[in-house]
Parts: sequence; C-alpha cells; structure tokens
Amino acid sequence: MRRVSRWDPRDVIAAKRDGAALDPEAIERFVLAYAHGDVGDGPAAAFLMAAVVRGLDARETLAMTRAMIASGDLVTFGDLGRHSVDKHSTGGVADGVTLVFTPLAAALGLAVAKLSGRGLGHTGGTLDKLEAIPGLHTDLEPAAIADQVRSVGCAVAAQSPNLVPADGALYALRDATATVPSIPLIAASVMAKKLAVSTELILLDVKAGSGAFMRTPEDARALAEACLELARGDGRPASAAVTDMSQPLGDAVGNALDIAETVEVLRGEVRGRLRELSVAFAARALGHLHGVAIDDATARAEAALDDGSALDRFRAMIQAQGGDPRVVEDPSGVLPRAPLRIPLIADRGGVLTAVAADRIGSASGALGAGRLRKGDPIDPAVGIVVHPKIGDRVEEGETIGEIHARTEEDADEAAGRTLAALTLGPDPVPPPPLILDWLDGA
Amino acid sequence: MRRVSRWDPRDVIAAKRDGAALDPEAIERFVLAYAHGDVGDGPAAAFLMAAVVRGLDARETLAMTRAMIASGDLVTFGDLGRHSVDKHSTGGVADGVTLVFTPLAAALGLAVAKLSGRGLGHTGGTLDKLEAIPGLHTDLEPAAIADQVRSVGCAVAAQSPNLVPADGALYALRDATATVPSIPLIAASVMAKKLAVSTELILLDVKAGSGAFMRTPEDARALAEACLELARGDGRPASAAVTDMSQPLGDAVGNALDIAETVEVLRGEVRGRLRELSVAFAARALGHLHGVAIDDATARAEAALDDGSALDRFRAMIQAQGGDPRVVEDPSGVLPRAPLRIPLIADRGGVLTAVAADRIGSASGALGAGRLRKGDPIDPAVGIVVHPKIGDRVEEGETIGEIHARTEEDADEAAGRTLAALTLGPDPVPPPPLILDWLDGA
Repeated sequence: MRRVSRWDPRDVIAAKRDGAALDPEAIERFVLAYAHGDVGDGPAAAFLMAAVVRGLDARETLAMTRAMIASGDLVTFGDLGRHSVDKHSTGGVADGVTLVFTPLAAALGLAVAKLSGRGLGHTGGTLDKLEAIPGLHTDLEPAAIADQVRSVGCAVAAQSPNLVPADGALYALRDATATVPSIPLIAASVMAKKLAVSTELILLDVKAGSGAFMRTPEDARALAEACLELARGDGRPASAAVTDMSQPLGDAVGNALDIAETVEVLRGEVRGRLRELSVAFAARALGHLHGVAIDDATARAEAALDDGSALDRFRAMIQAQGGDPRVVEDPSGVLPRAPLRIPLIADRGGVLTAVAADRIGSASGALGAGRLRKGDPIDPAVGIVVHPKIGDRVEEGETIGEIHARTEEDADEAAGRTLAALTLGPDPVPPPPLILDWLDGA
Repeated sequence: MRRVSRWDPRDVIAAKRDGAALDPEAIERFVLAYAHGDVGDGPAAAFLMAAVVRGLDARETLAMTRAMIASGDLVTFGDLGRHSVDKHSTGGVADGVTLVFTPLAAALGLAVAKLSGRGLGHTGGTLDKLEAIPGLHTDLEPAAIADQVRSVGCAVAAQSPNLVPADGALYALRDATATVPSIPLIAASVMAKKLAVSTELILLDVKAGSGAFMRTPEDARALAEACLELARGDGRPASAAVTDMSQPLGDAVGNALDIAETVEVLRGEVRGRLRELSVAFAARALGHLHGVAIDDATARAEAALDDGSALDRFRAMIQAQGGDPRVVEDPSGVLPRAPLRIPLIADRGGVLTAVAADRIGSASGALGAGRLRKGDPIDPAVGIVVHPKIGDRVEEGETIGEIHARTEEDADEAAGRTLAALTLGPDPVPPPPLILDWLDGA
C-alpha cells in the first residue's frame, strides 16, 4: 500500500461512529467537502447517522452550523433606518404567525426582512401562502428587499439558492436517509439560515405537540436551547418561545385560506390564539429592540391590530411586491376559491379534549394544499377550516368548519379525516397554555 | 401530502437507527434493493452505520447474508467424485495456508474447488500470488473447474463477478464510509461468498493479532462464532480455527516470494508455522469428511508433504491452469525476480518478543506488492522475507531476511520499516500458541 498523507473523510466518520467529540476544524472541513461535492452521499449519510445516534455537542453543532453558513453567501441589507428583527417557526398546523407578525412589527416601527424557503409539508410555507394573492411575487434581490423595508417596514422574499446551500443538500440527504430526528442537526439547519442574514434580533417559535415535529415540550425546549446556544456562539441576540401545537394554532389549514384568516386577524376582527401569539412576538421584539416594558409593548401591539395600522403595512407590503391590495378588503373576492365549499358537521357532541393536528394537516395535504417533493405544485385554493379549540363544547350536527376541495370525493375524505382527528369527551377541560416558556439567548 | 402506500426504505433505516431488531424480510428487501440500484448509496450507508453502531443479531445477520447470496448466482460443481472442502482465511501477513492446503487436501483424496476474489491489501490475494507463475490463468468457468478437480483434485479460480455481487458493492461502500468494523457485517461478507458455492465442508481460519483485522482473540472468536452461526442457519457443515497472527505466519511477504515459500513447504524442506497450520486444516478436513481420527489424519497430511504427493498435486494444478510446472523444481529460475535483493541485517540484538505484522505488510505494500484500489496493478516480484519468529534470539549484524525491491531507495525504506516492526528484549519468551481454538459449526 503506497503511503498516502492526504486528509481522509473516513477518519471523521470513524471518530463520530466511535462516539468521540470531533474537532471543529474536522467537522467544518467535512461539511464543506460535502457541499463542494468532494465527499459523496454515502460518506455524508454515514456521518449523519453516526451524528444522530452518537450525538453532537454544542461545539460540534456550532462548527457544523458555521460550515453550512460558509458554504454560501452572507446576506446583509445595510442600514434599514430601523431596528431589525427576524422571526422563525419550526413549523406547525395553521401557523400563520409570520404573516401577522411581519406587518405588525413594521407597524410598531421595526424592520422585518424575512427570507423564506419553500418547505415540504402538509400546506405550503409562508411564500406559497403569500403567492396565493394574485400578482404577488417574492423573488427580490437583497437591494430591493432593503429598499422595500426602508419604505414599507417589511418584506417577505424567497431565499436565494446560495443562502446556506449546504443546508438544502444536507436536508435532502437527511430526508432520504432517516437522519432527520436529531436536535443538533435540526438546530444547525434552522440557525444556519438565520445567522447567515444580518438582523439585530432573532426570534424563534419552537412548537411542541401533535402538530409539530417536536412532540413534547421537553424536546421543544431542548431544540430551543440548542438554537439559542448557536446564536450565543455566534454572538447574536436571540430569544425563543416554546409554544403549544397540541391543536392547530389558527382555524385555517391551507394557503388562500390562511391569507384570509391573516386578513381577519390584521383587521382586528378575530381574536384567539393566532392573534395572541403574533402579539407576543411583536411585543417581545419591541421590548428587546426599543427597550419598551413588556406590558406597554403588548398594549402597543394590540392597538396596532385594532387601529388598522398593521393591516395598512400588510396592504403596503402586498402592493410593493406586485400583489392585488384589494385582498385586505375583500379576501374571498380576490383570492382563488375551490369549486366546492362544504360545511364540516360535527358527527358527535362533547367537549373537545384533544386534536391530532398532524392528521388535519395531512388531510389538507391530501386535498392538494402541500407538497411532498421539492418543486411539486401546490393548490392555493383548497384546505380545511376547523373552528373549535380544546375546551370548547361541540353539539352533534353543529357546523364546526368548512372543507374547500376540488371534488366531492376529496371533500368527503377530508371531512372524515378531520372529524376523526378530534377527540370529544364528556367533561370540561381547560384550554392548554399557549406559551409554555420564553428562553433568552445572548 | 398525497397518500403513499409503497415500501419506504427509510422505515428500515429508522428502525435500526432506533435500535430495533428488524424483520428478516425487511433486511432482505433493503439489501436486494441496494444491489438492484433501487436504493442509493446515501440510504445504504446510513443503514450500514446504524447497523455498525446498534448491531445486528444472528437472525438479522442471516437475513443479510441470504439477501447477498440472492443478489447473484449459486455455483454448483455437480459430482466431483470426492468429498469437497472449501477453506477461507480472514487475512493475515505471510498467510500462504490456502496455497499449501489446496494441493495437500487433494493429495489426501479430497476435492478443493477454491474461488477467490482479488482483495485489497498489503500483498495480493491467492489469485495474484498464483498468477506470479508465468502462464498461469485463473479465469475458469464452473464446468472447467469441476473437470479439473475431478482429474487433479484441486483448482483455484477467480470468482465470477456474479458471485454475490451485493458483497462487492456493499464492501466498497463500507470501505468509503468507515463502516467496515462490524462483526456481523464482516461475517455476512465472508459467509455469503462461501454459502453461495456448493461444498460439503467449509473451514475458516479466523486470524487474531497485529497482522489481522481482528486484533484480539476475543474479537476473532466472536467473528468465528458469527460465521459458524450463519453456516448453521443455512444448514451447512463448517468449522473454524482462531489462529495467531501476532507475527507473519510464514517468512515471505510478497507474491512470487510466497509461491517460492509454498514450494519449499510442499517439498517438505521447510517446517514451521505455515506447514503446521496447513497440516492442521488438511487433517481437520480429512477427519470431517472421511471420519479419520485426528492423529491419524495429521500423520497422513505430514506424510503427503514429506513424500512429495502434495507437491505433485500442486504441479498438476499449475500445469492444468497453463502455468509453468518447472516452478516446483526451480522457483527462482521461473518466477519473476526483483532487480535488487538486499540482505536484511539486524540493527540490534536480543530476543524477538513482538512483531508489528501489519507494519511489515504495509512495508511490502509500499514496495508495490499490494493494491490500494480495485484494479490497481501489483508487482509480483517485490516483497520482504523475514525469518525470525517470536522467541528467537537475533544477533546484531545477523542477516535475518531479504528485501526484494525495484530501487535502492525503496529497499532502504522497506528495511527500515521492517526492522522498526520488530521488538527485541533481553529475556527469553515462549513462542505464542499457533491455534488458539477450534470451533465447530453444525
């Protein structure tokens, strides 16, 4: 065997396989080599599986995150004339907080330059939802985003393919190799995309429950802590809420349906958990960036919903991005509508005690609202609306929501799956707390 | 998300990731899907890493072995007119047992139809060594092998690419992904190739020590037991020796040099550990297949070396396979010779207490005797001869071997590396036992 003194990626894999803690340089080199195509899917998948089973400590996770950031370009917006905040959710069902939070924070004098990817899931992501508004586009260059934020206060744009490209490649590989469930790997994936963008404050909404990737509050808290540790390691202010996803957050599970609900909340017409959580995030941002006490900040956020100023920022953002601004006055007249809109009728009576939120999500996905594979089209019009929340009493025969579908067969199936996702009991139960914890970073 | 009810390889990976025992059907399907290209390197590597870290139980290992066998063709030789035996070594340094055993067993009235692959290693495999004999070819079809065995008693041929093709693919992936060190995976790889060939008895030589893959007798015993368990699961008679590889078995580490040493042993001129182990395997085969008591069988094997009948079978086999049979009379006149043959001089005196056999192997590999990658050429002429064994006394300045090299620089380096691999001490030490254990299968 001729002597060979070059770097061997197998040494990195073997060390993690055997449970060793790796040098940051070794991880960075391995991840960048994968991003550049110098290490193939096989070795990368073996490394990921070893990392899932053996774990990654905080130092290793930070090295992984830094390598992912270094695989692409940093995004800087320059001076936006306001304090800037970024907000990210780990994903849930009927989780429209970003859509409400963005114009609400802008109405409070903050800057929100939100970059989103097109995730996989039961419904589309924030981009897909916004694109349900006719004319609206999200392909904005950083300079155009900065211009819009300076004039409007907010923008939501598609992240460039060169924002943390290693994340896309690694995520696809993890999805194919059963190496998704790892708190360090999830944290690195979430935070690399946040840390690569210049923002003064990062707010994280880490969901826990039947409609979230983290099923228990303990796992969600661990993920939140891992994310904040990465922000700390990078010297970036951040704060994370662990929030309830034991039921859909809002009532609408779709794309156009989510926009319609967003408009109702921004108009101040609908109260409830979606409004409550959006207000909490906006107040947190104001407290952090403007030094406003939390009660005062909360009152200001409530006022911005009630006085129409948040709705005004939403209208301005839509207009700036080419969308039809009349959506804020007449959502159902402007947004695409499914041919069938069928009432959802309760087949039993009782108190709603539990919701399999993921099953409602997948019922909406089966209608066409989501995508299974990158690049799949989504149907903006279809989806499910379910009004009752845990603790509410439902009467047999009561209309508790609506199915928006293309065919009767689809609608029947979605209705059946949605009703099956609801657990009704005889006794009153309290509504679950919405915000389980706030954790602070640096 | 549209409903999808097809088989998902990620379920198999995830179950092993989480430490579950898999259904045999799930493993078989996964391995065959990989062999057929329906599962990629990424998922296969993730599965292998999960299997390395979490382990595979006997039932899972048998399923893996069966799937590997099912990926190719079974090899049957039909009636060979004699009882047949196959012999396999897990690999060591100066391990020429197969070359001696094959004609020796033939001389004792047994049939040996040995199929070999071209392994990676410090020196070539059995095929490469035999091919150092001018004219000799090993590309024989099963019918030609059977014909030769019926007339000569033995044949050594290259295994067809369709003998357990999944093994080659999996081994290459394991080599690239740091998933080699796993007793179940090693056992499956060894035994799939043995069980795919019709033979009445399988003998395994599982090596332990500095020149072997298994460094400790405990690991070697565990591998031997895993292999025998697979033979049992397949209803095949088998027997395994755990043998010492704390030093090179013979004296020659090369290809032509190994053939020359084989001839010396077959002529009865050289005694020592290589002869002893070859006799032990031949006696074991005779005992198993002809019901001969082990002392009697051992005496008959010794006699076949001393009376020239084993050498005669070696000559006949070489001739049948197109090689120059004069090699058994005049090895150095027939075999390729390196331009430089330089004495190896002891630079210290003392009792040989330990040998880093792997370092002598890699010194020979550096001369050109082995291959690092599939398809690399090997140099049949070069190599290293080292005579002293553990317990022998060496004087400073004594000639203890010979380096066969292409250049002075190569020779100097090989000499330095070889001497550095020898540990000398002041006090006598006993030679290590050669056969640590015999384990019986079904």
